[in-house]
Amino acid sequence: MDHQKMLDAVQAYFDRFNVQDAEGVADLYADDATVTDPYPTEPKTGRDAILAFYTAAVKSNSILEQQGSTRIAGNRAAFAFTVHIGGLSSESKAVEVDLPMGKMQIDVIDTFEFNEDGKVTAMTAYWDPAVNLRRE
Amino acid sequence: MDHQKMLDAVQAYFDRFNVQDAEGVADLYADDATVTDPYPTEPKTGRDAILAFYTAAVKSNSILEQQGSTRIAGNRAAFAFTVHIGGLSSESKAVEVDLPMGKMQIDVIDTFEFNEDGKVTAMTAYWDPAVNLRRE
Repeated sequence: MDHQKMLDAVQAYFDRFNVQDAEGVADLYADDATVTDPYPTEPKTGRDAILAFYTAAVKSNSILEQQGSTRIAGNRAAFAFTVHIGGLSSESKAVEVDLPMGKMQIDVIDTFEFNEDGKVTAMTAYWDPAVNLRRE
Repeated sequence: MDHQKMLDAVQAYFDRFNVQDAEGVADLYADDATVTDPYPTEPKTGRDAILAFYTAAVKSNSILEQQGSTRIAGNRAAFAFTVHIGGLSSESKAVEVDLPMGKMQIDVIDTFEFNEDGKVTAMTAYWDPAVNLRRE
């Protein structure tokens, strides 16, 4: 698996989520992919379930802000980020948001597993509201 | 699994590694644990192999510096950090090192899986020298 393809997919995940492009996020996944968010909840499996999940997620007025670099390991990537929830005006949502002003934050680490076509076959999200949610 | 126990184990991992306490790090693991560092290399399995791994690792003159908070998810934890390699004097290794002066850095994300006794049964490290190693 090409390193740059995996790095680009992670960057696209942030870029697409942050412009509320749920279809674009779902396109990063293989047709039979699983999304476990957060572990150990029941995985969302397959295109329809994954698109529905992200369609709801991008409506939450959230911005994902990456923390540090994307780690690559074999056919996997891992990356840390903060979700800024509830602080976006309708204006700032339109195009670019450099300074998210969220009212709550959740710290998350995600892992992606890739197939040879560069699609994500399994995403696992690590966070727990009792530990990783805080008010700004 | 108690959140605080998992958070404490991650903190102990950093604290013990950073004083070159390989035995103390190995004590965080269950007897039949696996350490896959980095994925997808062959796992180190069981107390002897894990202790040998950390005994060698702490001799590398490295300091682990956590980035952001420890994420908890079910019986798992995930955490991001930077390894500062090769910058420790014999003096600074003795007790506390607040400002690591490493000459190389590796960005890593680790995941821990815990059993009901609070011991780590599986560690997976995400990093690739071609992507995550840089000179300071």
